[in-house]
Amino acid sequence: MSRTIIGLDPGLAATGWGVIVADGNRLKHVAHGTIKTKVTDAITDRLKALHDDLMAVIAAHQPGEAAVEEVFVNTNPQTTIKLVQARGVALLCLGRARLMVAEHATRAVKKALTGTGAAEKPQVQAMVERLLPGVTINGSDAADALAVAIAHAHLVRSMREVMI
Amino acid sequence: MSRTIIGLDPGLAATGWGVIVADGNRLKHVAHGTIKTKVTDAITDRLKALHDDLMAVIAAHQPGEAAVEEVFVNTNPQTTIKLVQARGVALLCLGRARLMVAEHATRAVKKALTGTGAAEKPQVQAMVERLLPGVTINGSDAADALAVAIAHAHLVRSMREVMI
Repeated sequence: MSRTIIGLDPGLAATGWGVIVADGNRLKHVAHGTIKTKVTDAITDRLKALHDDLMAVIAAHQPGEAAVEEVFVNTNPQTTIKLVQARGVALLCLGRARLMVAEHATRAVKKALTGTGAAEKPQVQAMVERLLPGVTINGSDAADALAVAIAHAHLVRSMREVMI
Repeated sequence: MSRTIIGLDPGLAATGWGVIVADGNRLKHVAHGTIKTKVTDAITDRLKALHDDLMAVIAAHQPGEAAVEEVFVNTNPQTTIKLVQARGVALLCLGRARLMVAEHATRAVKKALTGTGAAEKPQVQAMVERLLPGVTINGSDAADALAVAIAHAHLVRSMREVMI
């Protein structure tokens, strides 16, 4: 049975997203992109823009499963607050679409794609392009989103297994 | 001109809210409450419950201004992530209702209510009850939300002055 998976890399300025279809071990790229918000807009308007655009992405691609990387608290509190507020809105959108979300450790994503949890970012992105041949990926946020979607396809057989 | 102000004290388990009308120096209590989410539910469902309930509160009371306290990054990263994700959803709700939000420092809220930025929490809550006579406040989250709404009424003459 094929599964349509959305991966997200949430952020206030830029939220990467990627949708794939996994059918057994076969992966197919569906779409990816980056939702950007204007730094000059009020926080409420930026969160609304993220919400509206992400709801449109979900409506367009109708994923059945969703995955995000675990989040870390940054040493800069203001950076953490912006990132985690945006993450809350991204998770809300999944909830509004009646999707649950699996959270994967960064090391687990890297290991699923490259075989080592210590892989560098460019190595992970190169594997994303190798696993989705013919696809030109625009932007590192979207590449990270596709990476977590691909890792999810390998790591989780059923959405009941791993939940936040 | 009277102003209808909503104050929020966001949290994942409990979000306090309070609505007041300020007419010059006169304050009137409109309503307050606490939106709770179930700790046993998935994070996406909890954020959706917060969103849906807060949108209903805003629709019912039609505030023209909104205020929150500034947020701190807790020493416990998991606590921070839960709190700040919920805060993101609360701010999104204000954005969806086309409200902007003023953020006030905790010390400024305490000083506006008690005259000292070093006031203890019970002292602040006692002042909230004194300033809104006849009102029995249910819960400390709602009391905190009313406190930031009252402080906002005093601190900000126009919503254009202070923005996050």
